[in-house]
Amino acid sequence: VTAAPVPDHVIDDLAARLGPSSVLRPEDGLDAYDLPARPVPGTGRGRALCVARPRSTAEVREVLSWARRHRVRVVPQGANTGLVGASTPPPDQRVAVLSTELLAGPPTVDPVDRTVVAGAGTRLSALDAALAPYGLWLPIDLAADPTVGGMVATNTGGARMIRHGDVRRHVLGVEAVLADDAVTVVEDLSTLRKDNAGLDLAHLFVGSAGALGIITKVALDLDRRPRARATALVATADPGHRLTVLFEAHLGEHLSALEAMSAEAVSMASEARGLRVPFAGGPPPLTMLVEASTTAAGGPGVADLEALLAGAVEAATSDGLAADAVLAPPGEAWALRHALTEGLRRHGQVLGFDVSVPRRELGPFRAEVRAAVAHWVPRAVVADFGHWGDGGIHCNVVLPATDPASEDERRRIREIVYGAVAARNGSFSAEHGIGPLNADLWEQHTPDGARALSRRLKDLMDPLGVLGHPGLPYGEPVSG
Amino acid sequence: VTAAPVPDHVIDDLAARLGPSSVLRPEDGLDAYDLPARPVPGTGRGRALCVARPRSTAEVREVLSWARRHRVRVVPQGANTGLVGASTPPPDQRVAVLSTELLAGPPTVDPVDRTVVAGAGTRLSALDAALAPYGLWLPIDLAADPTVGGMVATNTGGARMIRHGDVRRHVLGVEAVLADDAVTVVEDLSTLRKDNAGLDLAHLFVGSAGALGIITKVALDLDRRPRARATALVATADPGHRLTVLFEAHLGEHLSALEAMSAEAVSMASEARGLRVPFAGGPPPLTMLVEASTTAAGGPGVADLEALLAGAVEAATSDGLAADAVLAPPGEAWALRHALTEGLRRHGQVLGFDVSVPRRELGPFRAEVRAAVAHWVPRAVVADFGHWGDGGIHCNVVLPATDPASEDERRRIREIVYGAVAARNGSFSAEHGIGPLNADLWEQHTPDGARALSRRLKDLMDPLGVLGHPGLPYGEPVSG
Repeated sequence: VTAAPVPDHVIDDLAARLGPSSVLRPEDGLDAYDLPARPVPGTGRGRALCVARPRSTAEVREVLSWARRHRVRVVPQGANTGLVGASTPPPDQRVAVLSTELLAGPPTVDPVDRTVVAGAGTRLSALDAALAPYGLWLPIDLAADPTVGGMVATNTGGARMIRHGDVRRHVLGVEAVLADDAVTVVEDLSTLRKDNAGLDLAHLFVGSAGALGIITKVALDLDRRPRARATALVATADPGHRLTVLFEAHLGEHLSALEAMSAEAVSMASEARGLRVPFAGGPPPLTMLVEASTTAAGGPGVADLEALLAGAVEAATSDGLAADAVLAPPGEAWALRHALTEGLRRHGQVLGFDVSVPRRELGPFRAEVRAAVAHWVPRAVVADFGHWGDGGIHCNVVLPATDPASEDERRRIREIVYGAVAARNGSFSAEHGIGPLNADLWEQHTPDGARALSRRLKDLMDPLGVLGHPGLPYGEPVSG
Repeated sequence: VTAAPVPDHVIDDLAARLGPSSVLRPEDGLDAYDLPARPVPGTGRGRALCVARPRSTAEVREVLSWARRHRVRVVPQGANTGLVGASTPPPDQRVAVLSTELLAGPPTVDPVDRTVVAGAGTRLSALDAALAPYGLWLPIDLAADPTVGGMVATNTGGARMIRHGDVRRHVLGVEAVLADDAVTVVEDLSTLRKDNAGLDLAHLFVGSAGALGIITKVALDLDRRPRARATALVATADPGHRLTVLFEAHLGEHLSALEAMSAEAVSMASEARGLRVPFAGGPPPLTMLVEASTTAAGGPGVADLEALLAGAVEAATSDGLAADAVLAPPGEAWALRHALTEGLRRHGQVLGFDVSVPRRELGPFRAEVRAAVAHWVPRAVVADFGHWGDGGIHCNVVLPATDPASEDERRRIREIVYGAVAARNGSFSAEHGIGPLNADLWEQHTPDGARALSRRLKDLMDPLGVLGHPGLPYGEPVSG
């Protein structure tokens, strides 16, 4: 559907409401908003009608009033680092971008309560800089630098979730603006931890992908920064879940990451980035990154944590689960882990799938996907890695850049992966959330009652359907 | 409002749908359902039209279809241990009780994933018995034995929240039945930790007090049981937040409880229950219970945890925050803490307030309440205790049983406490949730936008208003 063109006076009306400097038009150059900040296969250049950059909650209300009045759909955008296409405007519809980048004043830190209230447009890096002097952090470890509003709308997970949880676990409150008739401001910014005084509306917006309201401010529960860390890289054949259970039992509350990297992923990354593989025989079938950490000033030091890790590895070795292991400095171990995505990209065409399965299914899932891909697309290489401790797998299938997948092969690989996920009651979107790139999977895999209620919530909170990417699965697109 | 009497055929219709043995009538004796399981000041004997005891999700749908058809309001009831009156029927309205007690088959434990799916009627004690053989637990420490459905509907907190979080943090999924036109079953029972495949509807029901739907099943994230624990009792003048910050920094991830008990509360409890006060000079102004624990098989033992505690106490003493301290066996320390509620009750009339404030306000809040109560109702004693580490206070005001508070004095004390809470952006319901006993406070203290959205959610999910206690603040009561 190509939408009717939008007359200039519509954008003029927005400029009149916000002030002309707060509205960017195509002739100003909108690349930063039209192009995803990270390459997202399946999403190309979008084309925004215009970009609204409100500076306050009141101005967000103005933008939504304007959108309702002119029936223009608004895509909220933070850092545009999302990986399912939800933050980038489509190329061919009358869609405006609401950028939260100016909703980013200095965060209000309460060091006694370990809480912060931050504008939605605050970058994770800026938040971290504000928290570090207090010895606090938001313990979400990511390959990108998103805004806190985007993180809440996506419910980001990351590599330290096994100890610290996802974004939802840290959300104490949200302020959001609805696109309903009253353009309601829902204010639920309490920073109290013990607070059960009514429905907790903040959680409605966690993972909502911008479909229910524009998040303007967020109140977050923080953790203390670690005082000591130690990491080990453990070489293993695929141990299924047994190594996970062993490390959890041995390390207990100290276990702060349990990541796995396939031989294929490690090879590509070390080749592309010149990183050293720490095992003499080259990368083993799986390299596990295990981190132990402490926030206790009176607790274990680095040497104690290393001894704890060594004890866990010894137990794993004597159970036949670990073939080799090295204590690596955390910087070196994480450099390898963080090099994987870029390493794969340099190697060829990457078909990426962000999925999860119950932990006991990790081994069978990998075996099934590998066998099926080898059978149907023999030149493709499965180079998977991910958050083993939480059942999360970045199941990447890599093809030569010179001989990429045909449409048919892409479809086949997609079917293999999502079929294997569905057969195990896994999730087709473990941490990237929902957007136009996986809306069809939501339709297929969400139970009827949950689908119906999701649509009705969307309709209640955004009755004209002006909010969020038009490719989101909730509700009908606005008629232009 | 006294409702029109309900003809017998209405209850006959319910019996026809569920089978007669699943419906109890007043002549069967309904004390177990009409009376709260714990004394709740302000709530007396209710009077249920009848009690429906469905055995399955399909039967819950039958009950709600029946309620819609006959416009009978249904109060969901688990163990009836709630403290704000939401689970007990009112005495004078046409209200049926839906007891979840038969929705309690054996829980499905996944020891590899550390998850469980349990029927809503499963008691916490039964759940614990099913989890213990696997070394797992739901780490919610309470003075009651509620059902898991009730715990989710209330978002219970308890005494180990500082380390383990509230019930919400452990909710992975919920199955619930709505009272909407289709009597929709919302099924969101995935046990995956990494799962962001759409709106997370489960969280809508957490803390909903039965107003949005009947929770039939719950999927929970579990923790490993502690392998070692140590507790200290620390004598202190009111240190405000400084002791909390010190203990958090020193003990880090090992800190699993930080409770405080006023001298008044300890005296009443030790008198009523013959418990030993561990300090030579009698109870100090505040006794802090500090617990350190570990789940790590390779981690610290009891002696290490005791040394960790001793180090923290030493630091507190040299900072002038602690006057005395003893390492007490966990059983003894917790026996004192758990004796407080009953101790107060034996002492006299207890006016209880379940509130929270930012941690830096704990000291000023207590000082203000004590001064005002002493001024206005000099014979009343403030005997407070609670979850200091999370800002939670059970602010109890105790009067002689022989000379209880007049209506005027009750109103005055309520104003003092809630006024001091509101002035500090605290919560009037920290962990007991919402019910007829505090609905007026919800009206007063909830921002407009949040109130409006709460009402509209209620209306969307229960358009006839047949669900939940009629004294809940959302929506209008059903017209009988």
